[in-house]
Amino acid sequence: MKIKTSSDYFESLKKIKPVIYYKGQRITDVVNHPATAPHVRAAAMTYSVANHEKSRDLAIAKFHLTGKEISRFTHVHQNIEDLIKKVKLLRLLGQKTGTCFQRCVGFDGINAVYSVVYEVDKKYGTNYMERFKNWLTYIQDENLMVVGAMTDPKGDRSKSPADQIDPDQFVHIVERRDDGIVIRGAKLHMTGAVNSHEILVMPTMAMDEKSKDYAFVCALPIDAPGITMIFGRQAGDDRRDNLERIDVGKPSFGAVGGEAVIVFEDVFIPTERVFLDGETEFTGDIVYRFAAHHRANYGACKTGLMDVLTGAVSYLCQIQGTAKGSHVTDKVTEMIHLSETLYSSSLACSVEGTPTASGAFMVDTMLANVCKQNVTRFHFEIARLAVDLAGGFIATLPSEHDLRSEEVGHFVSKYFTGVSDIPVLERIKIGRLIEAMTGGTALVESMHGAGSPQAQRIMIFREGNLNKKIQLAKNLVGLRLKEHIE
Amino acid sequence: MKIKTSSDYFESLKKIKPVIYYKGQRITDVVNHPATAPHVRAAAMTYSVANHEKSRDLAIAKFHLTGKEISRFTHVHQNIEDLIKKVKLLRLLGQKTGTCFQRCVGFDGINAVYSVVYEVDKKYGTNYMERFKNWLTYIQDENLMVVGAMTDPKGDRSKSPADQIDPDQFVHIVERRDDGIVIRGAKLHMTGAVNSHEILVMPTMAMDEKSKDYAFVCALPIDAPGITMIFGRQAGDDRRDNLERIDVGKPSFGAVGGEAVIVFEDVFIPTERVFLDGETEFTGDIVYRFAAHHRANYGACKTGLMDVLTGAVSYLCQIQGTAKGSHVTDKVTEMIHLSETLYSSSLACSVEGTPTASGAFMVDTMLANVCKQNVTRFHFEIARLAVDLAGGFIATLPSEHDLRSEEVGHFVSKYFTGVSDIPVLERIKIGRLIEAMTGGTALVESMHGAGSPQAQRIMIFREGNLNKKIQLAKNLVGLRLKEHIE
Amino acid sequence: MKIKTSSDYFESLKKIKPVIYYKGQRITDVVNHPATAPHVRAAAMTYSVANHEKSRDLAIAKFHLTGKEISRFTHVHQNIEDLIKKVKLLRLLGQKTGTCFQRCVGFDGINAVYSVVYEVDKKYGTNYMERFKNWLTYIQDENLMVVGAMTDPKGDRSKSPADQIDPDQFVHIVERRDDGIVIRGAKLHMTGAVNSHEILVMPTMAMDEKSKDYAFVCALPIDAPGITMIFGRQAGDDRRDNLERIDVGKPSFGAVGGEAVIVFEDVFIPTERVFLDGETEFTGDIVYRFAAHHRANYGACKTGLMDVLTGAVSYLCQIQGTAKGSHVTDKVTEMIHLSETLYSSSLACSVEGTPTASGAFMVDTMLANVCKQNVTRFHFEIARLAVDLAGGFIATLPSEHDLRSEEVGHFVSKYFTGVSDIPVLERIKIGRLIEAMTGGTALVESMHGAGSPQAQRIMIFREGNLNKKIQLAKNLVGLRLKEHIE
Amino acid sequence: MKIKTSSDYFESLKKIKPVIYYKGQRITDVVNHPATAPHVRAAAMTYSVANHEKSRDLAIAKFHLTGKEISRFTHVHQNIEDLIKKVKLLRLLGQKTGTCFQRCVGFDGINAVYSVVYEVDKKYGTNYMERFKNWLTYIQDENLMVVGAMTDPKGDRSKSPADQIDPDQFVHIVERRDDGIVIRGAKLHMTGAVNSHEILVMPTMAMDEKSKDYAFVCALPIDAPGITMIFGRQAGDDRRDNLERIDVGKPSFGAVGGEAVIVFEDVFIPTERVFLDGETEFTGDIVYRFAAHHRANYGACKTGLMDVLTGAVSYLCQIQGTAKGSHVTDKVTEMIHLSETLYSSSLACSVEGTPTASGAFMVDTMLANVCKQNVTRFHFEIARLAVDLAGGFIATLPSEHDLRSEEVGHFVSKYFTGVSDIPVLERIKIGRLIEAMTGGTALVESMHGAGSPQAQRIMIFREGNLNKKIQLAKNLVGLRLKEHIE
Repeated sequence: MKIKTSSDYFESLKKIKPVIYYKGQRITDVVNHPATAPHVRAAAMTYSVANHEKSRDLAIAKFHLTGKEISRFTHVHQNIEDLIKKVKLLRLLGQKTGTCFQRCVGFDGINAVYSVVYEVDKKYGTNYMERFKNWLTYIQDENLMVVGAMTDPKGDRSKSPADQIDPDQFVHIVERRDDGIVIRGAKLHMTGAVNSHEILVMPTMAMDEKSKDYAFVCALPIDAPGITMIFGRQAGDDRRDNLERIDVGKPSFGAVGGEAVIVFEDVFIPTERVFLDGETEFTGDIVYRFAAHHRANYGACKTGLMDVLTGAVSYLCQIQGTAKGSHVTDKVTEMIHLSETLYSSSLACSVEGTPTASGAFMVDTMLANVCKQNVTRFHFEIARLAVDLAGGFIATLPSEHDLRSEEVGHFVSKYFTGVSDIPVLERIKIGRLIEAMTGGTALVESMHGAGSPQAQRIMIFREGNLNKKIQLAKNLVGLRLKEHIE
Repeated sequence: MKIKTSSDYFESLKKIKPVIYYKGQRITDVVNHPATAPHVRAAAMTYSVANHEKSRDLAIAKFHLTGKEISRFTHVHQNIEDLIKKVKLLRLLGQKTGTCFQRCVGFDGINAVYSVVYEVDKKYGTNYMERFKNWLTYIQDENLMVVGAMTDPKGDRSKSPADQIDPDQFVHIVERRDDGIVIRGAKLHMTGAVNSHEILVMPTMAMDEKSKDYAFVCALPIDAPGITMIFGRQAGDDRRDNLERIDVGKPSFGAVGGEAVIVFEDVFIPTERVFLDGETEFTGDIVYRFAAHHRANYGACKTGLMDVLTGAVSYLCQIQGTAKGSHVTDKVTEMIHLSETLYSSSLACSVEGTPTASGAFMVDTMLANVCKQNVTRFHFEIARLAVDLAGGFIATLPSEHDLRSEEVGHFVSKYFTGVSDIPVLERIKIGRLIEAMTGGTALVESMHGAGSPQAQRIMIFREGNLNKKIQLAKNLVGLRLKEHIE
Repeated sequence: MKIKTSSDYFESLKKIKPVIYYKGQRITDVVNHPATAPHVRAAAMTYSVANHEKSRDLAIAKFHLTGKEISRFTHVHQNIEDLIKKVKLLRLLGQKTGTCFQRCVGFDGINAVYSVVYEVDKKYGTNYMERFKNWLTYIQDENLMVVGAMTDPKGDRSKSPADQIDPDQFVHIVERRDDGIVIRGAKLHMTGAVNSHEILVMPTMAMDEKSKDYAFVCALPIDAPGITMIFGRQAGDDRRDNLERIDVGKPSFGAVGGEAVIVFEDVFIPTERVFLDGETEFTGDIVYRFAAHHRANYGACKTGLMDVLTGAVSYLCQIQGTAKGSHVTDKVTEMIHLSETLYSSSLACSVEGTPTASGAFMVDTMLANVCKQNVTRFHFEIARLAVDLAGGFIATLPSEHDLRSEEVGHFVSKYFTGVSDIPVLERIKIGRLIEAMTGGTALVESMHGAGSPQAQRIMIFREGNLNKKIQLAKNLVGLRLKEHIE
Repeated sequence: MKIKTSSDYFESLKKIKPVIYYKGQRITDVVNHPATAPHVRAAAMTYSVANHEKSRDLAIAKFHLTGKEISRFTHVHQNIEDLIKKVKLLRLLGQKTGTCFQRCVGFDGINAVYSVVYEVDKKYGTNYMERFKNWLTYIQDENLMVVGAMTDPKGDRSKSPADQIDPDQFVHIVERRDDGIVIRGAKLHMTGAVNSHEILVMPTMAMDEKSKDYAFVCALPIDAPGITMIFGRQAGDDRRDNLERIDVGKPSFGAVGGEAVIVFEDVFIPTERVFLDGETEFTGDIVYRFAAHHRANYGACKTGLMDVLTGAVSYLCQIQGTAKGSHVTDKVTEMIHLSETLYSSSLACSVEGTPTASGAFMVDTMLANVCKQNVTRFHFEIARLAVDLAGGFIATLPSEHDLRSEEVGHFVSKYFTGVSDIPVLERIKIGRLIEAMTGGTALVESMHGAGSPQAQRIMIFREGNLNKKIQLAKNLVGLRLKEHIE
């Protein structure tokens, strides 16, 4: 692994020159630009945890094909233990950053593509797996950060790719050349894209026969010619951009992962980086396996975030003098209960993991969907409880400029104190942290990241095995005792 | 009414010179300063609705003592019809502004103080009512906006006012002079304070015998010497301050009402503006009646906001091509259902209103508390549904600067379109509106405005009349048929 | 009113001879048969409350056409005050009986038919209203109990009446004679049917043009030739039938209203009792107005039941020594909160009532549907809280036979005591009451009575006025300040 | 294992003569008495699953000390695999019986006592473990069913054992003899007691120093002299007792496990069956470990029940013609989602299991409490959804006597049919199954079995490790970048 530390990671980003726009301006230094730096730091944590004694075992894996030690974020799960270690790693990183550390999208993309291309090769005699392994080994050796690129703009959602008036609403191959393909379109909501090294492009949904040009997988560098990224807005982004250290809530890390639009304007990808091309019937598997892995993760990383939020609220109640109220205990209990319920499904879908034909392990897809579905509900509910206990001051607190003002700073200090021997700054900082973690973007991300709620419900119903359940009910009412018991 | 139109209101504000700080700077022109202008405009709507044929009947009342036509916001409810018209007025204003129009706090303060001082005079032979009527007539004639000032900083919440290390954590009388009183302390979360004309200071809780200096009511101009206000931060305030018209969500109005700290540094109030002074046993009634009226209102104004949000989401689904999904219909139905449930309690506590000794009408306190309690839950739930239906783009959308950028504006236009014949700007604006209405401050305000959830629960339990309910149960199991039926 | 007291009511029932089956046997004396007596007693309460000073004003109305004093249950609402008095009457009766007193179905049927036939006559020049008034005056003078018969068996729910293989799955006219009509089919879930005097038959849904034979309204005596009723089972009905006085929970009254299938085998109805015949386009209005009135009622009567349940649980906690636990207070508070939320919509849809063309008042249909929708959720939730606080003994308690047994009665007394100075019988009786009120049939009735949850959701969406709400949202983002404020 | 099959089990029960009362009468033949037979059959399923190829691996374990194959229900968990196999076994049995199969209470008691007495011996040099192993080996060899007896009557719940007016409200030692102890008192809610072979008596709560006589563990045969059992009532028990095969819902199995009061009137237990005597400080551990295991189980067996209920509802919708409604799919999805959420925590607390000092494995106690807490909520919610989809007929359906009646049977058949080619009996049976599974006792059991909801909340808060969480929050706001990232 060439990139071993967060410093290595920062250096590596300085060497590449992706085209990034934000608020109408070009960002040339993602490591230091105030809009991107906090997200870079969160991603950097995925590197640094590998260097700590306590977390090394979670963060490092041994690749089964090469025997080399690699970052777990570049690993292909080989067994249930791998799946469970991943869960624990993600919760830990959530606790340390209080935000999205972004590296799961590439991680889950790698796992989805690996297992599917094995099956494609088997059916068609293609050599996608060999290409993919070459690329993956490169990623592992360099320890690169990969953004898994799946979600297309989709235009009119009531129409399929081929029926859109603008064909670019789904990324597609516009030219097939001897040495590679040329693609056009865009991917939205690309978490961590601006501070990744590579992009792994995948289809956004199961494609039908007439959508061959939309059915491909490929990898390319983030600064490949023809790529433009536009970094999106978040709640509270101006405080971050203005380098406010208190009001921003989390001074070191972002609200969520930092999402960008990636635009592909006729971008060329050489053949050795193309891992699927036109085998439409496999697109569904890629999407589905990616989604299952990704949904499983949300019960782990978000639990880490909820741990932080629960701690913040508990501490705030202590320094406001309300911690002993029975309703406070009850609401904190509920926050913990909901968090651990999320964590349960993340663990459960791992322990019920099963091998694919390639040997790569899949999580249990039912339980992974259940996991994410609960995230879409419980983050809002936990936020509601946190806001309840924090009190109204997180919505009316004067700014840090007022706190530092000669004219009114002493008023802020005097009147926003709580229990008298605790510095007012502690209350303010914790209040701002809670404000940041219960506000808009953070909640939206929990709702839609890894697929909107309805996507999970469709899968839960589909995998519910209703016929078997119907048989169970029929057995109970229709059969005589003899038939039940030998 | 001297102030008849929104223009009159703007002019009136320009004539006074309150001391306001925000982000470390003095604000001298609240009407035009970008941080306060949207809140001024929302309050102005309370004036302008009185000039429209359709809403005039709701917005104007006839004062029983003078027979004059006045703004309903300066009226004392004389019957159930008054209470119901108020409910409809508030929903209408919520629909028109999509935010808090701020004038209820003074309105509810007036109603609470009016009914209580009548009872104080009756017991002690004081002449508070006469003073209060004089002041109130002045307010009505000028049609001034009054901020009802109740919530104190409270310091260590586990301690009473008298037990605080810093006595200023509750506003108190520091000097009693022949011609008036001198007060010190602060009031927090003061909605609409910076664009009000007058302050009505009330105690923050029921006071005991030893807290006579904390048990007073008085009124004074917002620019009285010794008053300093610090305007608080809100989610997305920088977009507002930077005069962004798209990304701010609501270009004309604020996220919530605009809250400020009001600091009183030894402020003098002349005797004729003091409406209670030391009659501690009446403080509970003031707080309780104020709270009941204020809680009743939340089911009306917030329903107005929810109407806007429901409309925004419905339209967004139409222009994204998802409106026909059965889960979309179901979630929109739920948004309406929850909104109308809020509205129900607002109406119900009005129709169950009863006269106080003074003749002023009180809402039913049980149902008013039930109303607000539901607001603390349903706004979050409605927001969750709105975020679900809106989709992830409200969290990742590039800024309006990008939209206008020569380099990348066309990408934003191309890739954030929905159904093809709708201008992309419609989708973006509606998305930003939803972002603004489901984010942090708006939700915190619904949670804590008019009292935190636990405050309502205490009242609901207290008013639950459990002994009567126990008797009902005993009747059903213990008595014979004869005793039930004549 | 000939029937003035509960005794009069009992006597009146003895004079008629309806055909009733239950558990395979004919019931000849509904007043004394253990299966029906509790339901008869609950209905009798609707007569006896009219004779009490306190409740007389709620229970008696003056009919606008005759000027006579009548039972409110035979009244046609003439104003908002009528609607509100009805709400209070229903809550009172719910508190006194802890169950369904059954008379609302006929009451709501009368109100629906009255207002619709007025409009039919207007359109077609028919004389249905005259016939209806004649019948109604008869009902009022005698003070008869009327069962409103609406729900048909429906067979295959995916098919319309005309498409059913068996045409009798919806009640229909099989013969039109000069002097009347002959009908065949059945009505299900007929609350209070076995102890009613008259049936008011209405269509079960909006009928289309080809379903003229299904589009009729008529009235007939409960013991008309060709009518057979089969009385349904309920949870715990055997305890009732075995005359257990403790284990049955409510010794005097039933679990719910007592539902029966009414079978019509070619039953003749004379022309003067036919109030609609083939005017298909009015069937929807009848169903819809009936449903709105009936849904409005559920927030009133069920709140009465919840009052009893809340009292029962509170008392049980007192005598078990748990009443001071903070979680107990919190759960009782929640029970009250949810109950009063139900009550709110019942009041709100009344105060928002409006006159129909006939002068009869309708409740607000949006709020009435919201009311019932909440009942379908909150009764379950309140039951859950009650079961939580009651403790597991309500599921494991030995029978009253054991309590009275010489061998083991002393064990039951000794080991099911709570706080030592309270007789064990109190704990047992209250426990059994809670068991009865949180069990199966009671909850099912709250779910499906007055229409299943989805029926309300369809109406809530339909009445949500989304276009107006969309306009509100567009106004907020699209128009400039000028256009908002004059 | 002497008892291998369900027949063996029936025979074994016939050989013992426990004293059982029910409805005031002695039950002498539990295998055939209608009140107990269904519960006996459910317990018998724990034997018969061991004889099926598919389930053998789950149902049989190898005891680590003897190397013998034993029923898993008599096993001491030695690793995570054991814990997970148990979870799968319980879900399977829940699916096959649709009810409680009762054998977990003894199973969990064995596991709790085994691990604790190891630690007692270590501290005090006692030989409890040797005695316990002797007893356990006997249980394993015979393959006996053991009832774990924990819950005492408790009298006034606001008082401790020693402070009760009646000392027998907690089971206690009334005499210590050379050869054993004599105990008095009662245990309530004893699932499966009447058809068990042995009782394992455990303390009901953590005992203090002054409660030495209450701090003991012992085992004795169910028919030991001085033991009297009184079998409790359940919802619908009369239908079961009357041998109704349709209306009872589950013709072969009970509503829940069949609970009894066990009264101990000065019962002698020989020293070799006493496994704790006076070591008060260990009582908390026994209760806590038992509770954790038992709470973990609820997410497994109840999921099995919910599978049955989901199947029943799905099938009913098919045969009523409503299955294609989008709200039907959505509610079935929700039933599955909630069920699998329960299952998740059951799996998760197993995979996070850890060894005790004795080598016996404990589930993760946080996640086990989270599991049970969710059961107390979700069974009600799933029942609500099931009742919603089933329709009102499950509350109004005539009895099976009416169905068989010559006079009215044809009406029931005709008017309760659904889709026309499905026999009406299918609809009725499935309806009755749903009625039975959503009614009173079944829900109460899910609420209070393995401890009431508040007991879980106390543990969740206690194990929440708030100090660590507070530190995480402080880290995020208080430390500079350097300190976060190496």
